[in-house]
Amino acid sequence: MGDLVHVQLEGRGYDILLGHGFDAVLGHPGNGDSALIISDSHVDPLYGSALQSALEMNGYLCYRVVVPAGESSKTLLQAGELFERAFDARLDRKGLIVALGGGVVGDLAGFVAATYLRGVRLLQVPTSLLAMVDSSVGGKTAVNLSRGKNLVGVFYQPRQVAVNLDTLRTLPDREYRSGLAEVVKYGVIRDDSFFEALEEDADALNARDEQVLQNVIARCCEIKAEVVGQDECESGVRAILNYGHTLGHAIETVSGYGELLHGEAVALGMVYAGQVSRRERGLDPDEASRVVRLMERFGLPVRRRVLADDVTWERLREAMSADKKARRSVPTFVLADRIGSVSEGCEVSESVLKAAFDEMD
Amino acid sequence: MGDLVHVQLEGRGYDILLGHGFDAVLGHPGNGDSALIISDSHVDPLYGSALQSALEMNGYLCYRVVVPAGESSKTLLQAGELFERAFDARLDRKGLIVALGGGVVGDLAGFVAATYLRGVRLLQVPTSLLAMVDSSVGGKTAVNLSRGKNLVGVFYQPRQVAVNLDTLRTLPDREYRSGLAEVVKYGVIRDDSFFEALEEDADALNARDEQVLQNVIARCCEIKAEVVGQDECESGVRAILNYGHTLGHAIETVSGYGELLHGEAVALGMVYAGQVSRRERGLDPDEASRVVRLMERFGLPVRRRVLADDVTWERLREAMSADKKARRSVPTFVLADRIGSVSEGCEVSESVLKAAFDEMD
Repeated sequence: MGDLVHVQLEGRGYDILLGHGFDAVLGHPGNGDSALIISDSHVDPLYGSALQSALEMNGYLCYRVVVPAGESSKTLLQAGELFERAFDARLDRKGLIVALGGGVVGDLAGFVAATYLRGVRLLQVPTSLLAMVDSSVGGKTAVNLSRGKNLVGVFYQPRQVAVNLDTLRTLPDREYRSGLAEVVKYGVIRDDSFFEALEEDADALNARDEQVLQNVIARCCEIKAEVVGQDECESGVRAILNYGHTLGHAIETVSGYGELLHGEAVALGMVYAGQVSRRERGLDPDEASRVVRLMERFGLPVRRRVLADDVTWERLREAMSADKKARRSVPTFVLADRIGSVSEGCEVSESVLKAAFDEMD
Repeated sequence: MGDLVHVQLEGRGYDILLGHGFDAVLGHPGNGDSALIISDSHVDPLYGSALQSALEMNGYLCYRVVVPAGESSKTLLQAGELFERAFDARLDRKGLIVALGGGVVGDLAGFVAATYLRGVRLLQVPTSLLAMVDSSVGGKTAVNLSRGKNLVGVFYQPRQVAVNLDTLRTLPDREYRSGLAEVVKYGVIRDDSFFEALEEDADALNARDEQVLQNVIARCCEIKAEVVGQDECESGVRAILNYGHTLGHAIETVSGYGELLHGEAVALGMVYAGQVSRRERGLDPDEASRVVRLMERFGLPVRRRVLADDVTWERLREAMSADKKARRSVPTFVLADRIGSVSEGCEVSESVLKAAFDEMD
């Protein structure tokens, strides 16, 4: 059986459909409109033609374009090529851009959909756990600059998110575990009983149990939809979704994109945020440890010794100042009061920032 | 005395301030936030430092960047360089991007403001007549692709539009006249008594009479604000602002950007739209002639013989099919029922399209 999660936004909303097979999760018939499927060199060979068939059955005239897999495709230059492909596919304002892949493809294709002809329709078809629970929902689109990640983009909501759970079967182990970091995050920021359920179901999740996974993904989508519905453009509460991301993004920037996966960097960032939260918000040390232990069970990195030698505190600290959520170069943090409840917009003294980092080993 | 026109949009709105001198038209104190002034190689030497002083007096920490004057700066590549300058100026989400110049700078800097960090504040400071009455108001931002003009962009509203009428004194004659084409357009699409006033004041406008100009610009802004307020993202009535633009854009694409100025291409497009309107909407031939005569008095081109020999009907027709407002390659037109009233979304038979073009000589 499929699941449906509705994302309610002011004046408009959209559905996340979860199920098995592309046919089961596509809405919005095409009536002969053009669709450009954007995927990457890993995912297109696995699912490109199956999705194309399903969309054609659904009334779309389909074109496909494939970008190299990996974060290095998330550039303005690559977006420029995709705009030209959209033009050549004669996509008009009723046309559809389809993002088939993980977070990179979703962000890139989302940016293209948001800006081509000042916005065409967007269908997110996430194929990684991370994209299913996080990046495909909520309307953030982005490309990177050489100076930092996700520095260019817009908020742009998809028409629909189509989650074909079958695609998780081919997801590489490390990427799957990376996605579990964001799953843990939802428990920490918003729902302690969900966090407890994750502790109970950790073995089943490690074994990719399909029913447990479907429930977990649906719950993550619900939480994200709830938060995004309250604050679409991140002027307030939405920032809690960035728990663990201030250091996480800095790690990605300093290490070079792709050294650590996004979820791995976020896992380290959540360990760090836990340490800062102990000092600043009185987070119970036992709760901080439970978060670390759960991530360890999921095979995620939790100690700073996994970082390369040249990823020093000084470089990470500088990168945090350049974070786009920083205010006049002062980084702000989401900190946990307890599992299930966090506060956003916290500024933290330099000595605590440094001490918390030292303690990650 | 200054004028104020308010643009009312759902949930938010902004002011257009018209007056003499930058000091007189700036609102929103900066409180120490960074501002990046983007201008071009023609305008920055004239007004860059005066605007910078006024913004500094108003509490901003200012940086300036200059792009080459002309349509060829409206590219993704140029936007990419501006993103890096914004980063280096440590612009954060409370930072301000200031567009100082004509339509090209407004579109380009607007796109940068809309997409840098998923959107920072934007102040439009138009210095050309065309930008004052048209491109700085309404939130369209864009860059060009080699395949066509304004194919990439977003709708993004400025925080304010600051119209310093003094800057018109240095505007080259041909650009000034080009702006008058858009002024005429407002009369045709929405206000017959404004059109009559333009006929009466044509000599004063040719002489750049300051009081007449201020009234005319304020009225154009009002009309644009009214139309945009009804339909921010151009799903309906906003399209009437494109009167004359279907052929106009095609002329610009086929001639190569910059051969004819935008207003000159639009003037030809309005002559063409008048011919089509006579056939399709029963527009009185006398009214069509009045529009042509007024544009002639403003020194605007009204005959197709001004086009280069290689700008053939076949090439223009093809370019119209690729217009971003086309539906499945069928161009749509805004057509006039009478001066002051138009209809949008009109499809027109091939024979009429061709005959109307032939008649432009």
